[in-house]
Amino acid sequence: MKCFKLNNLNEQEISGLTKRPAVDFEKTFTIIKPVLEDIKNNGLQAAVKYAKQFDGFSSNSVYVSDNEILEAEKSLNPKVKKALETAYSNIFAFHKEEVPNKIRKETLPGIICSREFRPIDNVGLYIPGGNAVLPSTVLMLGIPARIAACPRIVLATPVKGDHINPAILYAAGLCGIKEIIKIGGAQGIGLLAFGDSSFHKVDKIFGPGNQYVTAAKLLVSIDPEGCAIDMPAGPSELLVISDQYADPSFIASDLLSQAEHGEDSQVILVTTSEEKAVEVEKELELQLSLLPRKNIAEKSLGNSFMLITDTVTDALNFSNVYAPEHLILNVKQPDQFVDYIRNAGSVFLGEYSPESAGDYASGTNHSLPTSGFARSFGGVSVEFFMKAVSFQSLTKDGLSHISAAVETLAIEEGLFAHKNAVTIRLKK
Amino acid sequence: MKCFKLNNLNEQEISGLTKRPAVDFEKTFTIIKPVLEDIKNNGLQAAVKYAKQFDGFSSNSVYVSDNEILEAEKSLNPKVKKALETAYSNIFAFHKEEVPNKIRKETLPGIICSREFRPIDNVGLYIPGGNAVLPSTVLMLGIPARIAACPRIVLATPVKGDHINPAILYAAGLCGIKEIIKIGGAQGIGLLAFGDSSFHKVDKIFGPGNQYVTAAKLLVSIDPEGCAIDMPAGPSELLVISDQYADPSFIASDLLSQAEHGEDSQVILVTTSEEKAVEVEKELELQLSLLPRKNIAEKSLGNSFMLITDTVTDALNFSNVYAPEHLILNVKQPDQFVDYIRNAGSVFLGEYSPESAGDYASGTNHSLPTSGFARSFGGVSVEFFMKAVSFQSLTKDGLSHISAAVETLAIEEGLFAHKNAVTIRLKK
Repeated sequence: MKCFKLNNLNEQEISGLTKRPAVDFEKTFTIIKPVLEDIKNNGLQAAVKYAKQFDGFSSNSVYVSDNEILEAEKSLNPKVKKALETAYSNIFAFHKEEVPNKIRKETLPGIICSREFRPIDNVGLYIPGGNAVLPSTVLMLGIPARIAACPRIVLATPVKGDHINPAILYAAGLCGIKEIIKIGGAQGIGLLAFGDSSFHKVDKIFGPGNQYVTAAKLLVSIDPEGCAIDMPAGPSELLVISDQYADPSFIASDLLSQAEHGEDSQVILVTTSEEKAVEVEKELELQLSLLPRKNIAEKSLGNSFMLITDTVTDALNFSNVYAPEHLILNVKQPDQFVDYIRNAGSVFLGEYSPESAGDYASGTNHSLPTSGFARSFGGVSVEFFMKAVSFQSLTKDGLSHISAAVETLAIEEGLFAHKNAVTIRLKK
Repeated sequence: MKCFKLNNLNEQEISGLTKRPAVDFEKTFTIIKPVLEDIKNNGLQAAVKYAKQFDGFSSNSVYVSDNEILEAEKSLNPKVKKALETAYSNIFAFHKEEVPNKIRKETLPGIICSREFRPIDNVGLYIPGGNAVLPSTVLMLGIPARIAACPRIVLATPVKGDHINPAILYAAGLCGIKEIIKIGGAQGIGLLAFGDSSFHKVDKIFGPGNQYVTAAKLLVSIDPEGCAIDMPAGPSELLVISDQYADPSFIASDLLSQAEHGEDSQVILVTTSEEKAVEVEKELELQLSLLPRKNIAEKSLGNSFMLITDTVTDALNFSNVYAPEHLILNVKQPDQFVDYIRNAGSVFLGEYSPESAGDYASGTNHSLPTSGFARSFGGVSVEFFMKAVSFQSLTKDGLSHISAAVETLAIEEGLFAHKNAVTIRLKK
């Protein structure tokens, strides 16, 4: 890994290190726009056509049958079942705490304002297929959707031939998801977003995917006939902050667990110990050589770097500007730095909190903001599956307390009918 | 207004009534893409060029000076000041309740998960200019930004010549906003989203605008170098539900207060009383004739309709599918229907709760989801100016409780370095 010293860098060089490699979506947009347009006009039929063409889909039915779900339960390794159940239990326990409370406030006598959250009626969970089988992502999306009590949860995943991995189906079963469609890719997103007379569209789409899926999500999110999405997605990232007390083998294992995700993953070590940086480098070589996904991890280490700082606070300053998806704080007494963390998706405190704990089973969500979006987005949560509705209830007396303000501002804004709606009520 | 009876309509016709007129952004996208590209490459200088060209901007400085703010305070009508202060006080009181709490849960012994909200560092508030002067919108965006404690709040508004309306500046002053730039339109959005070496970009943009502003917000929201936005925006809407007890003059005043917003506004009356519908029609004619914005209101009434239903529940069913931005429930005992409201931005309960109360001063936010987006978005709130950060802190013992689950799932997903990060820690 490249190694820099913060003190030797000028402002522009530091800023350069906080930038992600440029992603140009324009080409991908151009490719998938006609696909989305076709699905908007021709619905399910068009989506199936592309699924056959792009994914080799060849099932008799678009929907997973009850029988397929039963078969999956029978065939799945009990150890995997147990693992999914442990993960389910922890993720459920933590996400249950996220359910937002109703608020209520009498702003002036006779004026009661309140806010209540309601589940989104139709949500679509996208689960990638192909080489990556991600039952953990089914839990990370399905559990908050279930806690939010969304009336309809549709899971979409691409299928080559007819077969869905049983772990995906088992995880969906744990979340109570019954509507599973065997269509993924940009065509899966298009079908979820636009629907047709036989497949009712969803109101919001969640989940990760390749560049085509990501681009399709972005496009449907700005289409007035489309739907909302969870957040924009980019390559996965990890920033580790460590001091002289950290174990280099732990650090290397964390960096590699992120690096193996994809060739475009980025891992960063910011450390106050130059000595330890050298040891981490050695550990990386050692551990890397044993990995099945060695080639992928090696390439993403090429996009990555180490940065030596004087203090942990300097390291955190850098991290706050970078805004990593995952931040591991492998330092003594990490709790003292928590208030200082402003921009990060999920934070792992102390040497026994590896990122993979949060990826699967600690209880937090692993659908997190990448590419610096941690500056404006948090990870997926129960609230992502709900929306707030505001209420106000005024008595005649309550209205009279704000009538002067409303009438004056309505006139100031040139909106006389707005004024009238108050005046006419108080005249009676 | 056109009038339908629900019982006489088939499913397709009902569904047609819940659809908004199609908006085609493609043409607008084509117009503003080069503008945004130019600003991305040439920053402030390019933004100023377009502000001169499109808005007639001719000030010496892009920033509002302290002196201009002082002058505005002196020149503004004391009645308007007082009105803004009343509105500020109520909006502040209600939004203060929205500040999200920290959550914390020990999911298994030795595994502590938590979540804390952090303000977004840089937020941009867009306030339209031209004919519409909207100091109320400054409050609706500035107050939650202030409560969220966003360190940097930039207000952008288009300026013809050199002058900003003093009510805008006074409202900004109440919210403690000091950075105000005189650039609006698509170029204002571009500058906020991309920034340059002299103007630091923002992380999220809020606020209403014309079709160019809306299109620009959508485009920057899907640009990896852009930023987040509050939500997609469309023409304003109101749905009134009334029974036989409602006063037709109140209903008409509410319908008109929405209709006067713009020619593309949509207002809908769903009532259980055919008699009252006839009376409302008469009241509309009467009140309409006295309005300065009569022509606008008349046109938008052309896009609008009345619907007669048997029961209030039928009316609410229709409303939940339509998902209005504003919903007035002008019926006896409206509270009994609250739980039944699933999709709406802001709801006005009872005959003394006109929409204009919420537009200005009841305390709720008036930046609300339009075009059916109330199915997936709530109105702007304090949480819109913050993002959640997740934390997890595991002891060695805690990690051992989930090690089997993490290792099994990592292997299932083919991610061996993920497994390693756990194995290596527990071996020591």
